[in-house]
Amino acid sequence: MKTVDINYKGSGSNIYISEAWRLVQDLIPHDNVFIISDINVQRLYGDCFPDFPTITIGTGEVVKEPDTVETIIKHLLAAGADRSTFLLGIGGGIVCDIAGFVASVFMRGIDFGFISTTLLSQVDASVGGKNGVNINGIKNIAGCITQPEFVICDTSLLRTLDEAEYISGLGELVKHALILDSKLFEDIEKNTEKLIDRDTDLLEDMVYRSVQLKASVVQKDIEEKGLRRLLNFGHTLGHAVEAAEGIVHGSAVAYGMSIAASISRDEGYISDKDLDRINSLFKKLKLFDQISPDWDNVSDKIMADKKRKGKDIYYILLEDIGRAIQVKYPLDKILKMIKIKIQ
Amino acid sequence: MKTVDINYKGSGSNIYISEAWRLVQDLIPHDNVFIISDINVQRLYGDCFPDFPTITIGTGEVVKEPDTVETIIKHLLAAGADRSTFLLGIGGGIVCDIAGFVASVFMRGIDFGFISTTLLSQVDASVGGKNGVNINGIKNIAGCITQPEFVICDTSLLRTLDEAEYISGLGELVKHALILDSKLFEDIEKNTEKLIDRDTDLLEDMVYRSVQLKASVVQKDIEEKGLRRLLNFGHTLGHAVEAAEGIVHGSAVAYGMSIAASISRDEGYISDKDLDRINSLFKKLKLFDQISPDWDNVSDKIMADKKRKGKDIYYILLEDIGRAIQVKYPLDKILKMIKIKIQ
Repeated sequence: MKTVDINYKGSGSNIYISEAWRLVQDLIPHDNVFIISDINVQRLYGDCFPDFPTITIGTGEVVKEPDTVETIIKHLLAAGADRSTFLLGIGGGIVCDIAGFVASVFMRGIDFGFISTTLLSQVDASVGGKNGVNINGIKNIAGCITQPEFVICDTSLLRTLDEAEYISGLGELVKHALILDSKLFEDIEKNTEKLIDRDTDLLEDMVYRSVQLKASVVQKDIEEKGLRRLLNFGHTLGHAVEAAEGIVHGSAVAYGMSIAASISRDEGYISDKDLDRINSLFKKLKLFDQISPDWDNVSDKIMADKKRKGKDIYYILLEDIGRAIQVKYPLDKILKMIKIKIQ
Repeated sequence: MKTVDINYKGSGSNIYISEAWRLVQDLIPHDNVFIISDINVQRLYGDCFPDFPTITIGTGEVVKEPDTVETIIKHLLAAGADRSTFLLGIGGGIVCDIAGFVASVFMRGIDFGFISTTLLSQVDASVGGKNGVNINGIKNIAGCITQPEFVICDTSLLRTLDEAEYISGLGELVKHALILDSKLFEDIEKNTEKLIDRDTDLLEDMVYRSVQLKASVVQKDIEEKGLRRLLNFGHTLGHAVEAAEGIVHGSAVAYGMSIAASISRDEGYISDKDLDRINSLFKKLKLFDQISPDWDNVSDKIMADKKRKGKDIYYILLEDIGRAIQVKYPLDKILKMIKIKIQ
């Protein structure tokens, strides 16, 4: 078992990279616990769940909406939940985003923790305390930043993960390596087959390192004003492609990273050889194959995303493998640079 | 203009007891402001509002629900609101509770401030940062504790307030005096006619002192574990009568305080003379007339409220006028004590 302790503004979170079912018994209270999970996770692992009432939701972004939050709160009320109730979310990003939001607002805030069952939520969403739901298809438009008491990342649970979802998590893992840790990038390069085979021990090591990397960034920049922007590497285009073309998050971000790496090369930061290494790794990990997004669609989405921050955009480039920088571009310039690459 | 500065856990709030319309211009940004108000306040004061888009909601507890929050967020999105949008709530407790909750969750939190237009929200809700909505008729069951940038309490706005609502605010004003400040109680006693006449200057002084009293308690006990419980004086029975009989908050609480004062006398804390002074003031302020609640209804509500905290109840008694204490009673004992009084 490996652990990472995180502290933000006086509230802390412990992330355990560990076998989940025994450990969770030590972390939750003896009574007054409610579990929130989804039908898939419940079907696969329901027998291992701690013996508490479970509220089961559906799967996919479509359930991540205010109605689900309200329904869960009504369930909690009907079942006698109170201020001292503990909420345990068992699932991927969607379950944890919803459960975290419910816990943040129910009676103005109750304690909660997660068992994270997808690679994407283990390497990424487990750190930072962000939660929320979508409205009008806009992701996480209503939410809070509230730290769970704990997150357990059990890499053995990843064996049952849907292929596309697993690949999706690999995208964020590689991102952390590319922007912050050249050694992790090399280790991923050396272990692509084991990664594809979902080797539990290897994953335990890599999830641990990935969580450490993200935690170091988030703790230094809780307000998301400086360093934390580096985590957006690949996301300007990635988010747009994900929304416009309906591609899974990790693949869309990998595609965005590939384009951003190519721009980094053009701007004189990284070598042709570096760019080849990056694209070759994406290919070996089957992160994406052919993506030919419709430009009008994608540029609309980039601009909608952009609108939130003024007339310039911070775009993340690689100075080297394992070192990212943020460069402020006028929006039209970055749009032009991306357009050339994807057409 | 009088101001009270409040600090909680690193986030601060300024409360201004002042003329509102000029001051607010200095406190809000020059652009990207949205106003949330209700149809009554908009009709009476819409001409004085700062020149920004206004989202107008209905009145009464019935609008204080998750759907209203979702509708407002959709409005904000359609109108191009973003992370740097400032939300200005203009209204009483319901407007401020909803606006505060929207600001707490929209894009995971944007800045906001209030112009408080009712006596109840000025003397009570302006301090503490609590917000939220009702679900299944349970008050504030989903909400946050988030501090506004500012609250402006303009006592001249109280002239147009509905009689029952005004009286309602007087109840909380007298409560602060009874539990914390005998001098304020005396000053209220001396000025009942001016208070009934809604004298702007007198109200400015009394709202200021009331806000200071509440702020001193809240800052010392942000977690609501000790001192802050004193603010519940009159509320155990008051909340129950309000819910069971549909009586306005301040009158219900005044009734609850009258019963609690009578129990304080029986328990040997205050004299017959003190009790007479209290009841005589309630009468002069027309806080309540004849209330004969149905016991079954009321006791059910007290027990439902109670359920949240265990088997005992902290009941607030007066040790003296201006000094309250919390006494832990078994639930059935306190129910018996109250029952005798109200039948």
